[in-house]
Amino acid sequence: MANKIKLPEWIEGYGAVTPYAGLWGGPYDAAKPQAKRPPRRASEPKRQKLYEDLDSLLDELDLHDGMTVSFHHHLRNGDFVLNEVMLALQKRGLKNLRIAPSSLFPCHGALVPLLEDGTITDLHTDYMSGPLADAVSEGKLKHPAVMTSHGGRPRAILEGDLPIDIAFIAAPGADVWGNLNGVSGPSACGSLGYAHADAQCAACVVAVTDHLEEYPLVPTEIPQHLVDYVLKVERIGDPRGIVSGTTQITKDPIGLKIARDALKVLAASQLLKDGLSFQTGAGGISLAVAKELEGYMQEHRITGSFASGGITGSMVQMMEKGLFRAIYDVQCFDLEAVRSYRENANHMGMSGDLYANPHNKGAVVNNLDIVILGATEMDEDFNVNVTTGSGGRIMGGSGGHADTAAGARLTVIVSKLVSARIPLIKDRVTTVTTPGESVDVLVTDRGIAVNPLRKDLWAALEAAGLPLYTMAELKAKGEALTGRPSSVASTERIVAVVEYRDGTVIDVVRKIAPQKP
Amino acid sequence: MANKIKLPEWIEGYGAVTPYAGLWGGPYDAAKPQAKRPPRRASEPKRQKLYEDLDSLLDELDLHDGMTVSFHHHLRNGDFVLNEVMLALQKRGLKNLRIAPSSLFPCHGALVPLLEDGTITDLHTDYMSGPLADAVSEGKLKHPAVMTSHGGRPRAILEGDLPIDIAFIAAPGADVWGNLNGVSGPSACGSLGYAHADAQCAACVVAVTDHLEEYPLVPTEIPQHLVDYVLKVERIGDPRGIVSGTTQITKDPIGLKIARDALKVLAASQLLKDGLSFQTGAGGISLAVAKELEGYMQEHRITGSFASGGITGSMVQMMEKGLFRAIYDVQCFDLEAVRSYRENANHMGMSGDLYANPHNKGAVVNNLDIVILGATEMDEDFNVNVTTGSGGRIMGGSGGHADTAAGARLTVIVSKLVSARIPLIKDRVTTVTTPGESVDVLVTDRGIAVNPLRKDLWAALEAAGLPLYTMAELKAKGEALTGRPSSVASTERIVAVVEYRDGTVIDVVRKIAPQKP
Repeated sequence: MANKIKLPEWIEGYGAVTPYAGLWGGPYDAAKPQAKRPPRRASEPKRQKLYEDLDSLLDELDLHDGMTVSFHHHLRNGDFVLNEVMLALQKRGLKNLRIAPSSLFPCHGALVPLLEDGTITDLHTDYMSGPLADAVSEGKLKHPAVMTSHGGRPRAILEGDLPIDIAFIAAPGADVWGNLNGVSGPSACGSLGYAHADAQCAACVVAVTDHLEEYPLVPTEIPQHLVDYVLKVERIGDPRGIVSGTTQITKDPIGLKIARDALKVLAASQLLKDGLSFQTGAGGISLAVAKELEGYMQEHRITGSFASGGITGSMVQMMEKGLFRAIYDVQCFDLEAVRSYRENANHMGMSGDLYANPHNKGAVVNNLDIVILGATEMDEDFNVNVTTGSGGRIMGGSGGHADTAAGARLTVIVSKLVSARIPLIKDRVTTVTTPGESVDVLVTDRGIAVNPLRKDLWAALEAAGLPLYTMAELKAKGEALTGRPSSVASTERIVAVVEYRDGTVIDVVRKIAPQKP
Repeated sequence: MANKIKLPEWIEGYGAVTPYAGLWGGPYDAAKPQAKRPPRRASEPKRQKLYEDLDSLLDELDLHDGMTVSFHHHLRNGDFVLNEVMLALQKRGLKNLRIAPSSLFPCHGALVPLLEDGTITDLHTDYMSGPLADAVSEGKLKHPAVMTSHGGRPRAILEGDLPIDIAFIAAPGADVWGNLNGVSGPSACGSLGYAHADAQCAACVVAVTDHLEEYPLVPTEIPQHLVDYVLKVERIGDPRGIVSGTTQITKDPIGLKIARDALKVLAASQLLKDGLSFQTGAGGISLAVAKELEGYMQEHRITGSFASGGITGSMVQMMEKGLFRAIYDVQCFDLEAVRSYRENANHMGMSGDLYANPHNKGAVVNNLDIVILGATEMDEDFNVNVTTGSGGRIMGGSGGHADTAAGARLTVIVSKLVSARIPLIKDRVTTVTTPGESVDVLVTDRGIAVNPLRKDLWAALEAAGLPLYTMAELKAKGEALTGRPSSVASTERIVAVVEYRDGTVIDVVRKIAPQKP
C-alpha cells in the first residue's frame, strides 16, 4: 500500500518528506529523541506564579515571531483559551506563529483572520473541523498544516519534532503553585490526557484556570514542578460546549442493524471472552455497538479487562456493571465520564503518550483487543479517510483512529454504505488517514468485507454465516445506488501534510478548487 | 561559607570540580538538560515483557563493562533486588560497573566483594550505611563515590549527568505489561517516589516483582509505557526490613525536652498558623517535635496545608485528625503510611523530582514552611554533617536533608549537644552535607542558637524568652563536658565526592586512616 501514494520528496513550508513505510516501518532513531527536545527551565525558588491578567503575564514571557504555542482540546467546542491567547498575541503584532492545539473545533473560527494577516502561518494538530479547517482547505494558512494522530502528537513533542516554546494549558482546577486537574470547578472536563506531553516538554508552561483551590490541589493530574505560571481568568470555557450532558446511541434502524452485525463479527472473531479489552468512538453507531456488546457480555457472563480512549457514559456503565474492570481515559466525552473519573480509582487517566505513542515502551492501544471506528471514505485497499470530506475539504483528522487501528488485534469500521447519496467506498480515498493494512473488517448495512490480509478472520466470519463480500463487490453495490461519484476537484497547492503516527508522511491534502458560482 | 572549603580542581575518577557557589548559585544551563539524556527506546508492539528467570532476562539485555545500573531504596533494609542483580552481573564477568541506588543499607553488605574484584568501580547514591559504606570509607571502591541528595539525584538523571543504562525497579505490584505500584502484594512499601526519574530516563527499564496482578494494575504509579521488561521472582524483599510496623517517638527525657523547646521556636517564628506546611524526619526527637506540634495545632485550632517527605504514621494521624489537609509522600516509613497512601486520595505520592529537584519549575520543598532535621555534627557556620561519623567514616548522607533545608522557610536542627561523649559542634564539620546558610536554628538540650543570617528570627525568639546562645557559646558548653575532640585522622585519598543538590561539589570524604591495632 505504501508505494501506491505518490508523494513529493520536498514540500515547501514543510520540508523533506519521509514517506510512510508500513505500520511499524518508519524510522526510529533511539539517539534522537532528546537531541532536539526543548530545554527545561528552572524556576527561581518561591517565585510567585500567579497572574490575574493575560497582558501582565504576556509581558513576562519571552514572546517572539516564529515561536510555537500549544494548546489542548479537552474543552472541545466550549474552549475560550486558544482564541483569547492568540488574539492577544495578534494584538502585540507577533507574526509567523505556529499553533499546536491537539484539536480544533468550530469555536476556533475566530482565528481565521489571524491566518489571513500572517499572525499564524503554521499549524500542527490531530483533528480540525469548522471555519478554521475550511480556511486551511481554502489555502489561507501560509504553510501546510501538519495533521497527525493523538499518538503521533506526543511522539513528535517527546522526540523533539515539535518543540514548544509556550504551552497554554486550560485547567479546570488549579492552585497557585501550578498543580492542575480537570475535575474541579465550573469547567470540569475530566482527564487532561492530551496536555501531558506539552507540560513535560514545553520550554514554558502556562496554566490558565477559572477555578483556584487551596494549595495543594487534590487530586492533581499535572503537578507544579512542570508549570511556570498560573493565569486566573474569568472563564476558560462554556460548559455547554465542553462536554455533552449525555452521549446518544443512534436510533436509526439502519445504524442499529450495522451494530448488530458488528457484534456478530466480534462474536465470530473469538475475542469476546474474559479479559477482553475494547474501545469505541462516541459516534451513534459505535455507541450502538457498545450497547450490543454490553448485552452479549451480560448474557455470556464475560468480564472484560479495560475500555479505553475518549470515554462516554456507555463505557462507565459497563464498568459499573462489572463488565470491564478498568477504564483508561484520555478524554471525557460526557458528564457521566467526568463523574466516574473523579470518583472511581479504576477509572484511570492516561496521557496521550501512554495511550498511543508508537515509540514508547508499550502504549495502551497495543493492548487493545477490539476497536470500533467510523469512516468517511474507504477504498479497496481498506484505507480509511476521516480527514477530508468527499469534496476534499478538511473536516476531521485521525484523532486516535490511526493509533487504535494499528494497535488493536481487531479493527472494525462501521458505516453505512451510502450516506447522503454519497458512496462510502471510492476508487481511492481522497485522503489516507489510516492505512488499510491496519484495518481488518468493514461492517455496512449492505454487507461485510474482510481485509484479505486476515484470511483467518475471513474463515471465522464465513463459518459464522455472515454476509461477506469483497470490497470491490461492496463498492459496486454502493455505486449501483448512487452512480459513480465524480472525482474531487482540487488544485496543486498542498494545504496539509498528513503524518502517520510515527512521523512519516502518509498523504497530503490539496487546496480545494474555488466553488463554481 | 562557600570559599571556606578547599576543594581540588580535579578529582581522579570524578573529573573537574565545579565548587559549591551558594544555595542557588550553581550553574544552570537551560540548553543542557536533554543533550546528554539517555535515549528512549521503542518497544516492538505486543512484544512480551514478562520473564520468570533473571538469567534468561539478562541474556536479552545489552550488558557491557562500564555501564550504569540503577536501583531505588523503597525496600530499604529488606531489599533483595540490588544484591541479586549485581551478583548475577558479577557471575557474568562484567567489570567497571557504576551502580546508582537512591540509598544503600546494611543489607547491601553482600556487595563488598564486588568492590574488591572490580565488578563495581563507581557508585552514585544519596545515602549509605553499613558494610558497603564502610568499604567505601576504607578505600575499596576504585573511584570516589558520588553522594548527592534526594533532589540532586533526579536532577542529575533528568539533566543527563547520570545517564542510566538499565534501571532495575523493585515493584511490590506489577502486571505483565509493566504497570507498577508499591501498594500491592507481600512486599508493599508505599510510594515509589525515588524510582520515577529512573523509569523516565533509563535506556532500559526492568521491573522486578514478586506479585503480578491482572492487567491493568489498579492503581498504577509507574505506567507501562516506561517499562521494557517485567521480571517475576520469588521474593523482592523481606517485609521485616522494608517498613517498620510503627515508628517510635523518643522516650528519652532529654529528647523530649529538646522537642518541647523546638515547639517554642516554631511558635515564636509566627509560622504556626492556618495553611502551615511541615516536614520532619523519622528520628525519635523529630517525631517528638511532630507530637508537640500536633498538641499545639489542636489547642490553637490550626489547620495546616500539607506534610511532606518520607511519611510516618505520626503524619498520617495528623492528617486524619484534620490537622493537615494533604500529604506529599515520596517514601513510606511504616505500615500506617502505606495503608493511608493506599486508601486516601489526599495522601498523594510525589516523585523525587517533584519533591526536591532544584532545577524544575517549583519543587514541593520550596513550599515548605518548617522542616525539622537532625545532625551528626555542626560548626559555627551552621554547616551540618549527616554524611560521616566523627571518625570520618561514611554512615549516612543527605537524603532530603540539604533539599528541605534549602527550600523551607524555617529549618530547625534538633540534637543533643553531646551524644555518647562526643560534642555536636566542632571547629569544622568533618563533612559538609548541608550548607549553614540554609540552616536557621539549632535546638539542643542546653540551649538554642540562631543563624546570624536570620536577625528577624533571633529577635522573635529573644522576645519569646528562649535561651539563646551563639554557636561559639554552645560549642564551648559542649567542650566543657567532653574536652576538645581530637581531630579526625584521615588520609589524602578521596573516597567520596559530596555533591550539593545542584551538582556542584560541596565537600569530599577522605579514606579513613587504618585502625590502630
